[in-house]
Amino acid sequence: MVRLAVEVRRGDRLLEKLANLGHVFPSNCGGRGLCGRCRILVLEGRELLSRPTKQELALLSREELSGGWRLACQAIALSSGSLVLELPYLTYRLVVEGVEGPVELSPAVVGRQLVIEKPSLADLRADEERILSSLGANSMDIELLRELPSLLRHGPSRAEAIVRGGEVLDIRPPGRPLLGMAIDIGTTKIAAYLVDLRVGKLLSTSSDINPQVAFGEDIMSRIAFSMEGPDKLIKLSTVLRDGINKLVREACSLAGASPNDVYELVLVGNTVMHHSLLGISLRGLGLAPYTPATTRPLQVKARDLGLEAGRGAYAYLPPPIAGFVGSDALADLVASGMYELGGTCMLIDIGTNTEILLKSGDAFWACSCASGPAFEGWRISCGSRAVRGAIDSVRIEPGTYEVAYTTIGGAKPIGICGSGLIDAVAEFYRAGILDASGRMREVGTPRLRRRQGVLEFVLAWASEAGAGHDIVITQKDIREIQLAKAAIRAGSRVLMEKAGVGPEDIDMLFIAGAFGSSLNLASAMAIGMCPSVPLSRVRFLGNSAGAGARMMLKNVGLRRKAEELAKHIKFVELAVEKEFREEFLRALSFPSLGA
Amino acid sequence: MVRLAVEVRRGDRLLEKLANLGHVFPSNCGGRGLCGRCRILVLEGRELLSRPTKQELALLSREELSGGWRLACQAIALSSGSLVLELPYLTYRLVVEGVEGPVELSPAVVGRQLVIEKPSLADLRADEERILSSLGANSMDIELLRELPSLLRHGPSRAEAIVRGGEVLDIRPPGRPLLGMAIDIGTTKIAAYLVDLRVGKLLSTSSDINPQVAFGEDIMSRIAFSMEGPDKLIKLSTVLRDGINKLVREACSLAGASPNDVYELVLVGNTVMHHSLLGISLRGLGLAPYTPATTRPLQVKARDLGLEAGRGAYAYLPPPIAGFVGSDALADLVASGMYELGGTCMLIDIGTNTEILLKSGDAFWACSCASGPAFEGWRISCGSRAVRGAIDSVRIEPGTYEVAYTTIGGAKPIGICGSGLIDAVAEFYRAGILDASGRMREVGTPRLRRRQGVLEFVLAWASEAGAGHDIVITQKDIREIQLAKAAIRAGSRVLMEKAGVGPEDIDMLFIAGAFGSSLNLASAMAIGMCPSVPLSRVRFLGNSAGAGARMMLKNVGLRRKAEELAKHIKFVELAVEKEFREEFLRALSFPSLGA
Repeated sequence: MVRLAVEVRRGDRLLEKLANLGHVFPSNCGGRGLCGRCRILVLEGRELLSRPTKQELALLSREELSGGWRLACQAIALSSGSLVLELPYLTYRLVVEGVEGPVELSPAVVGRQLVIEKPSLADLRADEERILSSLGANSMDIELLRELPSLLRHGPSRAEAIVRGGEVLDIRPPGRPLLGMAIDIGTTKIAAYLVDLRVGKLLSTSSDINPQVAFGEDIMSRIAFSMEGPDKLIKLSTVLRDGINKLVREACSLAGASPNDVYELVLVGNTVMHHSLLGISLRGLGLAPYTPATTRPLQVKARDLGLEAGRGAYAYLPPPIAGFVGSDALADLVASGMYELGGTCMLIDIGTNTEILLKSGDAFWACSCASGPAFEGWRISCGSRAVRGAIDSVRIEPGTYEVAYTTIGGAKPIGICGSGLIDAVAEFYRAGILDASGRMREVGTPRLRRRQGVLEFVLAWASEAGAGHDIVITQKDIREIQLAKAAIRAGSRVLMEKAGVGPEDIDMLFIAGAFGSSLNLASAMAIGMCPSVPLSRVRFLGNSAGAGARMMLKNVGLRRKAEELAKHIKFVELAVEKEFREEFLRALSFPSLGA
Repeated sequence: MVRLAVEVRRGDRLLEKLANLGHVFPSNCGGRGLCGRCRILVLEGRELLSRPTKQELALLSREELSGGWRLACQAIALSSGSLVLELPYLTYRLVVEGVEGPVELSPAVVGRQLVIEKPSLADLRADEERILSSLGANSMDIELLRELPSLLRHGPSRAEAIVRGGEVLDIRPPGRPLLGMAIDIGTTKIAAYLVDLRVGKLLSTSSDINPQVAFGEDIMSRIAFSMEGPDKLIKLSTVLRDGINKLVREACSLAGASPNDVYELVLVGNTVMHHSLLGISLRGLGLAPYTPATTRPLQVKARDLGLEAGRGAYAYLPPPIAGFVGSDALADLVASGMYELGGTCMLIDIGTNTEILLKSGDAFWACSCASGPAFEGWRISCGSRAVRGAIDSVRIEPGTYEVAYTTIGGAKPIGICGSGLIDAVAEFYRAGILDASGRMREVGTPRLRRRQGVLEFVLAWASEAGAGHDIVITQKDIREIQLAKAAIRAGSRVLMEKAGVGPEDIDMLFIAGAFGSSLNLASAMAIGMCPSVPLSRVRFLGNSAGAGARMMLKNVGLRRKAEELAKHIKFVELAVEKEFREEFLRALSFPSLGA
């Protein structure tokens, strides 16, 4: 279960509200209360909600209803206020949490019982020395040291010491929680995960828009912004830090905990996020050959990054792999566990930049493809993020060109999100609306029309849409998708050439990224975006960067493993690969339909 | 030579001005221009001074005069302004600088030539990785890392890297100075020494009152102040830090250098100064059993202490030995080199707190005696610091009780400083004015009189004094000196008992502290303050804490040596030694005159 605080306003339907917050249920009844896949547990604020409907009485037991279970599609806020909800773990985890591999609990920080003996004439050792020797430690956080004389003379005689390696971070009354945070800093979204480090349990999750978007939608515009003046990078650092602190406070509040009990943070992100959090100049990432400033793993005091946490807490930042393959890709690798698998494995983390990792035998390759924001609905005429009402799957009847589609949450369509776009393009091609070069054919249907000289296909008419206009895919949209999928395909081809393997050699294909399981893999393979492998060899990881970060939070040995891997991953700069250009041009076309 | 900037006002005589700044010349002609021992070199501001006198024309050669040499007792400022002077090293070094032992140059930071190759498609390593591997280093200061992408792309192709162990602290254009600062933080005075770390040369010195005196004259009152409220310790830290920064800027300015070129600082001081600089609670030092918070050597980024220095610079703080035996005593030990001598050695650093170190064979003992501020003229009716006009030596004719004295700078007497007090008490005792218990005897001289029921002895009549009144020593003053000298004597006796040695076993006695060579050792031994050893076995170290700090700045191996020593020094808490009480009571009396 994942706990969540939600502010509602009178009239909000919870399904819609949650979808807009990024929490999309795998429901398939169109929000009509028939499939029961949007079950949620209302912990606080039940009195704000409408009474259970007939559908809920049919699908939920009496015990469940009296315990606070509801269907998100049926519950409507009758007045404004705050709710605390729990969402079932399994339905939620893929998109927001990603899939964690099994991991032994062995965190960087541990709590140690301590009996404090007050100084006496018989024991004139320094305060610090008495503590260190009783714990077998060899250093102490300076802020703890500053308070130590008071703590030892006025504190309780029994205490818990928080120890990290040989360093004592804090001394505090016994019985308090020992927490860690994993943070996945995306270009657009930040997700924070609060973990109980005594038992390894995920306690709560919070996520929000990355406040840096105010200074540029994508990373190149943020780099450009940072180079406008000396205070701009500081601005990027500051808002990012503030955004992270807000999420840490939120996640702690959801779990009834305090940021003061968080003694370890693991932060992953692309290299621009990594550098801007640390306040490192982005200049090297903005100019060819796009080298990062550092690829060293860093552990720094959380306070030195301005992050709120317990006294002496550290932030661990796994190494970036290259300028455009960040520590989030390394976290993907950790989450996939593919480094422990034999044979040939590929991992594709699809986003505005798509990172591809290929393992063949003991060797690793990585590259980054500028796949662009088309899959997030940007630069697409009727594009949309994956929110309620976005068309997420499309079927087209060959011959009649009639359209069937589904939308997120079953609402009236408002636009098309990434998985819908891939589906539509694959269906267009299969139905003969596109030729192999991606050119639209003027097939005989009123849905295919020309507007201001440009061909477009109507997926949904204004009459059936919630957008107030026809929802279309234009020739220009097709070109955007072609550019995106060609970049990914060409990247994977170049890596496979480096490794001397072909698609048929791939034993396991991991798909990571916000798409999650909403991606129609058959369509992605049909348009040539992913290597064609049997579906049984595909694993969806969801937001695996967050999952990998949590695994490194729980097990410090995995960090050493990840750092070792990072050193041995061969980064392939596609810009200098002649093959990439050729593959890219080839990959713009669609594969033959038999393939 | 030591360089010094001095602000003068019209009418100032330089000898007087310098004496008031603590720069006392060993002149013995009373400032009449006859002995030539106050020679100074005027580098800037000659035009502000009076023309050379007949005496100067007689004692200085034509070349010296045209080069800017003057006698400080003759030169008078004709108008206000700034002078830059150089004082001869030998006359000055003992009091302000202390005596350094021989030391090989092996500083913590070194400059390494670096050829910067700009990143290229053929070399996609991270900026940091390219620098680290070319230097064989393994980490980099985070602030340097923040600027690195800009530095490598816009800086010069040839540069100098400042490397400390495996860490790169800075990268900068070649040819700039590489400097270090040694700082001796006294309760009353701070002294800062600027050292060229390429050649090991002392470039300049600056010193000033410790600004913490505004919150308490002695350390106990500062501890009490710090416990008045949560912001008080911060106040103590802040003013101390600001005071140190001012001295660093001054010392750099004198040498025409910049604090940005200072890459290493060594700071020594008593444990209260050490803790308050670090912002560590003083609570443990204010309450029995007076344990320090830490006795671990610390190296922290100068910026984390708010100290001005070059990018990435470290501050090294040698370990305190105990609550009232600070890292300044450890620096004394380093400066004396006594740890390398065979036999039995004692070091006495005389001040408000007097630290005593005893070495016998391979074993070390240390203690701290509350000798009080009497030797600095405090709590003495006509007491004075060692400034111009202070009586610094006294002779009394037995029988006639006639007095001969000298004053600092030969001026009319204004009071009595520490060495004069010790001299006077010894002479009183020898002349029979005091009995062995320290009681004044009403001998037949108008100089011995009773005022308001208290006996006092007139050293200088108002008519000959510059103070406008008689300069006297009262029975109460004698008691203060007795308490002070008894504390020191009892401390040294307890240490000798621990070691099983007597005064006759002492092969070398080191005297450190502001007294310097102005202390009349024979008098100090006559009143029993110091163990009686042949004068050939006594060495004056002057301000050896500053000297020891400079030695640890120049040679990093000496730090390991000092840390090792600190661990093995047995601290003796006199408060719990029954013998101390007995010795103290016995030591209040004066030794028999035959001794």
